[in-house]
Amino acid sequence: MMKIDVLTLFPEMFTGVFGQSILQKAAEKSAVQYNVVNFRDYADNKHNSVDDYPYGGGAGMVLKPQPIFDAVATLKENTDSKNTKVILLCPQGERYDQRKAEELAREDHLIFICGHYEGYDERIREHVVTDEISIGDYVLTGGELGAMVVIDSVVRLLPEVLGNQESHMKDSFSTGLLEHPHYTRPADFRGMKVPDILLSGNHKLIEEWRNKEALRRTLLRRPDLLDNMELTAEQEKWLQEVKKEYK
Amino acid sequence: MMKIDVLTLFPEMFTGVFGQSILQKAAEKSAVQYNVVNFRDYADNKHNSVDDYPYGGGAGMVLKPQPIFDAVATLKENTDSKNTKVILLCPQGERYDQRKAEELAREDHLIFICGHYEGYDERIREHVVTDEISIGDYVLTGGELGAMVVIDSVVRLLPEVLGNQESHMKDSFSTGLLEHPHYTRPADFRGMKVPDILLSGNHKLIEEWRNKEALRRTLLRRPDLLDNMELTAEQEKWLQEVKKEYK
Repeated sequence: MMKIDVLTLFPEMFTGVFGQSILQKAAEKSAVQYNVVNFRDYADNKHNSVDDYPYGGGAGMVLKPQPIFDAVATLKENTDSKNTKVILLCPQGERYDQRKAEELAREDHLIFICGHYEGYDERIREHVVTDEISIGDYVLTGGELGAMVVIDSVVRLLPEVLGNQESHMKDSFSTGLLEHPHYTRPADFRGMKVPDILLSGNHKLIEEWRNKEALRRTLLRRPDLLDNMELTAEQEKWLQEVKKEYK
Repeated sequence: MMKIDVLTLFPEMFTGVFGQSILQKAAEKSAVQYNVVNFRDYADNKHNSVDDYPYGGGAGMVLKPQPIFDAVATLKENTDSKNTKVILLCPQGERYDQRKAEELAREDHLIFICGHYEGYDERIREHVVTDEISIGDYVLTGGELGAMVVIDSVVRLLPEVLGNQESHMKDSFSTGLLEHPHYTRPADFRGMKVPDILLSGNHKLIEEWRNKEALRRTLLRRPDLLDNMELTAEQEKWLQEVKKEYK
């Protein structure tokens, strides 16, 4: 079972997300155990303060090392894992992607450190953290949403977490291509129609259409993904056909 | 005031996030109004079903057009905005970044469509959605966390939302560089020390150190950000000094 600890000053932010859908089901199936900790409880000063002014001046507060050092040490003592990953969510981190999600899904103990407004004292990065992760090039109020994103993407990869319905969806990024378009009933919705080929019953042609449309969408929207892919001879042929349409 | 509507099958996921911190304060200050809608309530069939099997076969369910078309139409009727953005969270979307956050922060009405497990009927993308957004190259269980990420990054940019404490932090990406390291008390924490220069009281040298360290961190971790930046003559000089250290 994977153990996930979250250090945050806003534990209530996690209630709705951990208590719903796949993340909840994964805990019910004992694939994962969540533990949300307010690291203010670890502050050893009488005001329970967790931040202080930055050395060298300037606006903004900085998270003190002591509460986070001690919270992480306690969480590590409380686990049998020999290889805890301590993950800091921050814009300076490694860009998160599906490959990293697959890597983290093989671990057995993850601790997430979520700062909020403040910067982190650099000694936290240097001596406590094993992985700095950024979920994208945008600024968030805190690390909490980033932690939820990483946890969701990792937990759904754990064995037995996804049921049949979900696991058979062909994930974008897992196949290397963006997904082809999907359609469901009605075939004519207020004058907007489903492509005839999907109604044809010819499974070979449908499969070919889907492959071509996945290639088309990737070519038009994320051509960078094609650079990192080994295409089959058939995919290469389809891709050339698609490219011709845009010449 | 910005109006934000969210269409989801898991409205409870949003309670903890909208009810805490900056997102809550922004609503209290009437900078934004949140409205979370379960689009199952708009399904016009007797079982309130929102998804159906895909045309052309295959596993996985597809979100039907009708509930989402009708929910969006109703939400648009209930606003004075002439220019509603309807945002679909999906891996096929445009990669989200700070520039897009700034663009969305100038809008007055955003509707977020969050699918969960399922794919979307393509007619939703073609006829309802104005912006398809991906928050990163990883697979999530649903669009809800992506919507929260976009909403957090947009709402904190609205006028008067951030107080003094937060707004003066020099955001990564806003300056074009990653942030320099931060330190706070104690100067010696269990043998780990703060760089002397930050304790020197020499503000000119401290400013120079911070500028150089921001450049160093960006060079080592995200050199791609430097490609898109106009450096000042002084920054160019510091960057060359930093580069020499790695030769």
